[in-house]
Amino acid sequence: MSQIFKQHISKFITVSDEEFEAIMTYFNAIQVSKKEILQEEGRSCRYQYFVLTGCLRKFLINEKGVEVTTEFALETWWMSDNRAFEFQTEALFSIQAVENSEILTIEAQSLEKLYRDFPIMERYFRFVYQRAFAAYQMRIKFLYTMSKEDYFFHFYDSYPKFVQRVPQYLLASFLGLTPEYLSELRRKNRS
Amino acid sequence: MSQIFKQHISKFITVSDEEFEAIMTYFNAIQVSKKEILQEEGRSCRYQYFVLTGCLRKFLINEKGVEVTTEFALETWWMSDNRAFEFQTEALFSIQAVENSEILTIEAQSLEKLYRDFPIMERYFRFVYQRAFAAYQMRIKFLYTMSKEDYFFHFYDSYPKFVQRVPQYLLASFLGLTPEYLSELRRKNRS
Repeated sequence: MSQIFKQHISKFITVSDEEFEAIMTYFNAIQVSKKEILQEEGRSCRYQYFVLTGCLRKFLINEKGVEVTTEFALETWWMSDNRAFEFQTEALFSIQAVENSEILTIEAQSLEKLYRDFPIMERYFRFVYQRAFAAYQMRIKFLYTMSKEDYFFHFYDSYPKFVQRVPQYLLASFLGLTPEYLSELRRKNRS
Repeated sequence: MSQIFKQHISKFITVSDEEFEAIMTYFNAIQVSKKEILQEEGRSCRYQYFVLTGCLRKFLINEKGVEVTTEFALETWWMSDNRAFEFQTEALFSIQAVENSEILTIEAQSLEKLYRDFPIMERYFRFVYQRAFAAYQMRIKFLYTMSKEDYFFHFYDSYPKFVQRVPQYLLASFLGLTPEYLSELRRKNRS
């Protein structure tokens, strides 16, 4: 299973098998069940999560008490409340498994030690954040320029497998739609 | 002027004066006038920009032909179309000086060479992107949970000096408001 992580690292940096084995000792592999909460809003944010298999989502509760999903993480994606993780402040987001998932976790102290012991991992995480930031820039572009309907169709065209995979009420929340309107748009798309 | 950059780097990594001087040779310092375009949508994205003094904005033209400002960069902030810069594809955003500004620029090839020659700069940029990504996560949180009115008041309370500094029609665009509604909210805020 750790091969998934090795392959991902190898997209950005070169590490030997021995180095990779040593790097793996900074992480823990856990299995989480569908709907299991990994991080709770308001609690300290101890971990970064790397999805080996499965899917996580990040969400918060809005003023009306409704859950709003702001992010998904599929295989080879990282997820955390990054601000809370860096500054060790209380989390503003919750993280939950959408499916049964296999996850690598790393604590802030271990990650800092990893950077010190294997400075090449700075380059790996520089790429991870660089791409995550660029992806968010695109998302802001879509949110600022597309109607909800256009955003829905763009999303459906870009990630057809993902759209089939996640529960529709979570997708609706992520796209800022009611589940009813999402169903209506899906019917429209098929016709 | 390069001291501003040195101070920023020193928040994250330790470099000697000699190292910093060598690092500076990878950058160019330029002066840009208010309203000058640094990056044009649809053109190749050659540079990353670091603001020493002044202010930049990132914008795009929406389907109605209206400019939409999606990001500002003040002193010590980086700005680029990060996706286009990394993959050397055409830019999806334009970048313009909001004020007369002093800017450091670096080209993709120079940056890659900088990483190779000074691997400690991977750590610096890892922090830059990590924080930029975390800031965008917060922005998504606000966009997903606040009304435009609440977002306006939150923004005004959080960045009072910035709000005074930038042209109000740009701020309105950034906050997703018409200039008229922005004026109305400002009056409301004062009363």
